[in-house]
Amino acid sequence: MKVVLTGAAGVIGTAVREHLGNKYDFVSITRRPADFSDVVADVNDFDAIRPAFDGADAVVHLAASISVDSPWDAVLHDNLIGTYNVYEAARQAGLSCIVFASSNHTIGGYEMDGAPRIYELDDPRVYDHNAEIRPDSLYGVSKVYGEALGRYYHETYGLRVYNLRIGSVRGDDDPTAASVKDGSFWLDLTAEQKYDRMRSTWLSQRDCAELIACCLEATTVPWATVYGISDNPRQFWDLEHARRLLGYAPKDGAPESV
Amino acid sequence: MKVVLTGAAGVIGTAVREHLGNKYDFVSITRRPADFSDVVADVNDFDAIRPAFDGADAVVHLAASISVDSPWDAVLHDNLIGTYNVYEAARQAGLSCIVFASSNHTIGGYEMDGAPRIYELDDPRVYDHNAEIRPDSLYGVSKVYGEALGRYYHETYGLRVYNLRIGSVRGDDDPTAASVKDGSFWLDLTAEQKYDRMRSTWLSQRDCAELIACCLEATTVPWATVYGISDNPRQFWDLEHARRLLGYAPKDGAPESV
Repeated sequence: MKVVLTGAAGVIGTAVREHLGNKYDFVSITRRPADFSDVVADVNDFDAIRPAFDGADAVVHLAASISVDSPWDAVLHDNLIGTYNVYEAARQAGLSCIVFASSNHTIGGYEMDGAPRIYELDDPRVYDHNAEIRPDSLYGVSKVYGEALGRYYHETYGLRVYNLRIGSVRGDDDPTAASVKDGSFWLDLTAEQKYDRMRSTWLSQRDCAELIACCLEATTVPWATVYGISDNPRQFWDLEHARRLLGYAPKDGAPESV
Repeated sequence: MKVVLTGAAGVIGTAVREHLGNKYDFVSITRRPADFSDVVADVNDFDAIRPAFDGADAVVHLAASISVDSPWDAVLHDNLIGTYNVYEAARQAGLSCIVFASSNHTIGGYEMDGAPRIYELDDPRVYDHNAEIRPDSLYGVSKVYGEALGRYYHETYGLRVYNLRIGSVRGDDDPTAASVKDGSFWLDLTAEQKYDRMRSTWLSQRDCAELIACCLEATTVPWATVYGISDNPRQFWDLEHARRLLGYAPKDGAPESV
C-alpha cells in the first residue's frame, strides 16, 4: 500500500516511519528538506503537493500547526487551507483512505471544566466520540473543521476517513520525563497535576503507529472518529470505540505515578 | 441595542432591517455601497470591518458565500476567514452577543439519504441539534466551522452565541412561487418534489427576523444551536428546541400544496 505521509518529519511522522516503514510504501512530504523526504513542500501550496498523491492508496495527514496556542495565521494556512489541499489532492488522485491527526482539543472544554479533578484515578468522567464538540482554542476549531471536511469527502466521494483525536505523543516517548513538568501549557497546573494529566493522555509512539495502521487496514469501516491514547491507568477519553471498531490494542500505558 | 449587521444587503439582511429596524440600532456592513450602508467593506478584510464594531452590543453575522455549490476560494475567503474576522472584531470591541447564520447543510447528509421520501407529510424523520454533523458541501463544512468557532468564542470569552441552521428564506417571501421550481439545485428533484421540500424548509422573512430577535433578547441562554423554519406542515428539522429555549413562535407556514 502506497501511503502519502504529510508532516513526515514531526514526532508522529517519525514514529510512523520507524514503526510502519517496513509495512507500507510511504511518500514523505516535509516542509523542509530531510534525508527521507520524497517531496519538499508546504501543504498550504496545493500545486506543490498534488503530484505526490498520484498512484497512492491512502494519506496519513499529520502536517499542521500543532500548538494549542497557534495564532490565527498559522491555523489558517497550515490547518484550514492545508487540510483542504491534502483532501482535495487525495480525491483528485483517486486515493481511497484518509487518516487525519485530529485532536482532543476538539472537546477540550470538558477538560477545562474538569481539571485538575478529572485527572485523578477515581474520577469517573469519560468523553466519547458522541460528546458535543467544545473546542478550547483556534487550533481545536481547526480540528473540528478537519473532521467535518473528512466527513464531507467520505460521504460525497466515498473515501474511507478516520479522525484520530490524539492525546500526547512525545518526542522522548517517556510519559514520566522531566520535561512533562516544564514549558508552556494552556491550563494552569502544578508539576504534579501535569504528570497526572500525562498518565491519562499519553500515547506511546508504537501505539500511535499501531492505531494509524488499524485505520489503513479497516476496509470494512468506512468512517470513524476515535481517541488515541495508550492503555493508561486513567482514561477520560473513550478507548472502547477504537478497540471495538478498529481492533486497536494498545501495548503501552503510563505508570500511575512518577 | 446597537447591532452590527453583516451581509446587510442580502435577502435575510434586508428582512432584518425591514422587520427589526425600529427595534435595534443597526450598523449595516455591505460589500458594495447601498443607501443604507454604514460601512462598505468585505468581511474578509479585518482592518476594514473592525471599526464598525466599536460601541456595539451584538452582531448578526449573515455575510457569506451562500450557495451550497460555492467553490473553495469563495468558502475560504467569505466563510472561513470572514467569520473569524467578524468574531474576532466582536471580541476585541467587547460585544456580548453573536447571532450566526449557520445552515441546515451542516447536516445535509440526512436529507441526501432521505430525499424525496423525507419531504412527504407522513414521513416521521426529524433531526435536531444533537444530530451528528453530516455536511453535504464545502459550504456546509464552513458552517460547521463557524458553529465551532462560535462555541470557542462563547466558552473562552463569554459572548452569547446562537447558531441558526436556517432553512429557505426567499427574496419574494413566497414558498409557492414559480421560481421554486426553477434554477440549480444540489439534489436531482422534480418540480413537485422541489415544492415538497419548500413546504418543509421555508422560513418566512418575518419569522426569520423574529428568530434573530429572540436570540438578541435571550440574555439567560448563553449558547444555542437551533433550526430556523416557519410553522410548516412537514418539518424534518426540529423546531421544539428553538421554541422552548428561545421562545421562538413562528407566525407563518407553507401550504400543504400549491
